[in-house]
Amino acid sequence: MPVETKLKVHNFSAGPCVLPQQVFQQAAQAVLDWDGSGLSILEVSHRGKPFVEVMEKTRALVKELLGAPDHYQVVFLGGGASMGFHLVPQNFMKVGGKGAYCHTGEWAKRAIKEAKLAGGAITVASSEDKNFSYIPKGFAVPSEADYFHFTSNNTIFGTQYKQFPKSPVPLIADMSSDIFSRPVNVADFAMIYAGAQKNMGPAGATMYLFDPAALGKTGRELSPMMDLANHAAKESMYNTPPVFPVYVIMLTLQWLKGIGGIPEIQKRNAAKAGLLYSTVDKLPIFQGTAAKEDRSEMNATFVLKDAALEPAFDAMWKEAGISGIRGHRSVGGYRASMYNALPLESVRALTEVMEEFAKKNG
Amino acid sequence: MPVETKLKVHNFSAGPCVLPQQVFQQAAQAVLDWDGSGLSILEVSHRGKPFVEVMEKTRALVKELLGAPDHYQVVFLGGGASMGFHLVPQNFMKVGGKGAYCHTGEWAKRAIKEAKLAGGAITVASSEDKNFSYIPKGFAVPSEADYFHFTSNNTIFGTQYKQFPKSPVPLIADMSSDIFSRPVNVADFAMIYAGAQKNMGPAGATMYLFDPAALGKTGRELSPMMDLANHAAKESMYNTPPVFPVYVIMLTLQWLKGIGGIPEIQKRNAAKAGLLYSTVDKLPIFQGTAAKEDRSEMNATFVLKDAALEPAFDAMWKEAGISGIRGHRSVGGYRASMYNALPLESVRALTEVMEEFAKKNG
Repeated sequence: MPVETKLKVHNFSAGPCVLPQQVFQQAAQAVLDWDGSGLSILEVSHRGKPFVEVMEKTRALVKELLGAPDHYQVVFLGGGASMGFHLVPQNFMKVGGKGAYCHTGEWAKRAIKEAKLAGGAITVASSEDKNFSYIPKGFAVPSEADYFHFTSNNTIFGTQYKQFPKSPVPLIADMSSDIFSRPVNVADFAMIYAGAQKNMGPAGATMYLFDPAALGKTGRELSPMMDLANHAAKESMYNTPPVFPVYVIMLTLQWLKGIGGIPEIQKRNAAKAGLLYSTVDKLPIFQGTAAKEDRSEMNATFVLKDAALEPAFDAMWKEAGISGIRGHRSVGGYRASMYNALPLESVRALTEVMEEFAKKNG
Repeated sequence: MPVETKLKVHNFSAGPCVLPQQVFQQAAQAVLDWDGSGLSILEVSHRGKPFVEVMEKTRALVKELLGAPDHYQVVFLGGGASMGFHLVPQNFMKVGGKGAYCHTGEWAKRAIKEAKLAGGAITVASSEDKNFSYIPKGFAVPSEADYFHFTSNNTIFGTQYKQFPKSPVPLIADMSSDIFSRPVNVADFAMIYAGAQKNMGPAGATMYLFDPAALGKTGRELSPMMDLANHAAKESMYNTPPVFPVYVIMLTLQWLKGIGGIPEIQKRNAAKAGLLYSTVDKLPIFQGTAAKEDRSEMNATFVLKDAALEPAFDAMWKEAGISGIRGHRSVGGYRASMYNALPLESVRALTEVMEEFAKKNG
């Protein structure tokens, strides 16, 4: 077994992001010589038995870790969640129908755009009035919609649904940035999809987990590339799948299972987010930008009340080996992304810098 | 610089396939620690300067190696050539228009299906009458078509266009299985596209090289994910790109440039194919399945005239460390894929086995 290596950089990148150190070692070994085969994982056929087994194991791990019902299906495709935004109306919106959406920022906006292009979108609620700094609540989903779609966590604004909305129509969630970070009752959802490049693996693959009974009701004639039922029937091999990204997803999910699965990672994530937000709240020179009750455990957004201090703060965290905490341009300030594989040690390094900076500039 | 390692396996896989040994070493190093950054290539932001430079270098290498006109654009997307089959009519077929196609087998068939779904397809020629064992010639492309599409090399049937067809309408080619193997006059094409997993890199990315002036003429309102002009304007970063596959493409194209580019690889490919086909032709127990004038330099298909000898032959080549030469089920027999990175040494190993087998069973 590979040994844990010492972190050289505390990687708070918003995604692609840090993965378990042992996964990097296993993946590098497979690039050189995969399981002693004499072949690199990069040169093997996707239809050969060894990779077919990787695909099967990865699908099974998704369902096991999330506790998905047996009949749910898992598909891996290229293209990121943006492809998912397109596939949702193609697979779930009836001809002449509409999708309902909650608008919580950039990713929801792109998803809504795809629904409009496919036929129509009903925006049931939006937090645009306060620059997406909160999660809308108390809205009603119209029963005439073909489905209701929401983004479980917004990476840019640092907001996260703490309770998933109820819906009288099939529920679909883009969970790209918090999948596998906390329990989900999969049976409540017609589909959950997620780009790999946060809690699942490297960039280059997107996971779709769905109830096959929810498909095939739209009356649309789909391209086989756009048809989730086709991809499921072909076990994600209708076209050449992203072999290496799927392999690294398998390694990452094996790591997650090995440390204790969702219950254990939920504890670790709560500890990391708790430490970071309590530091933001106790140091008056910092201020969180998201509504407290909607704060994301994955992406903590905060600013220096005095923006003139930013260059000095930036120099200090860079000196401490911290990387990737500059905020998105639409929020400014800072964003510390604390995905599953980020160790508590990295959050401690950051909060120590924050404390020291506050002491010098408080 | 990494040293060439001794081949443990002669990998004749039809794709994903063998890549240069030095690329495996460079890629594995980048998975552990990319360019001394302390970060894995799998955890870096696609918007950070180091990866933006990878994307820029890779686009530039594509154009340099192929001698593409300056104004042509390069885009990398997930999804394989099957996504390309879908994107072609979306981006080039007018509303109410049609695409013209030459039908040379499975991949052309899938491309034609996408055109039919988008509006209409004109099949100008087909080699289906002889199980796609030849390339149709002497056909005329109707000037009312919006474009003419062909598949430059068929991996399953082992056929390859030796001369590219002329067309009065914009010419589009799927070159997934022979891109970068021989010279192409890019200016003759409105678009060339290719899945990475043969001569370019690992599975998980597809390259689109096109004349931007040929886009935007269809009257279609496209999803931003389906719009090649959008992807070009966003420099392949509209959605999170397949970071690691693109990085390995860069390494592979750097290798190709380093050995002398297309002129050198064309010589090597001719030598490999020459050796293999001359062996097939001189040993009476074997027979090639493709028309001689259309034989692919990438995929050589052949059978044992007496199929009862197959188990004995299979045992012999497996013993010699040869992998991946079983033919596709629709042709049977054998297929030796000899992509750019397959060394002549591997073809020698195979032809020696063939000679020895013929001697014992001739």
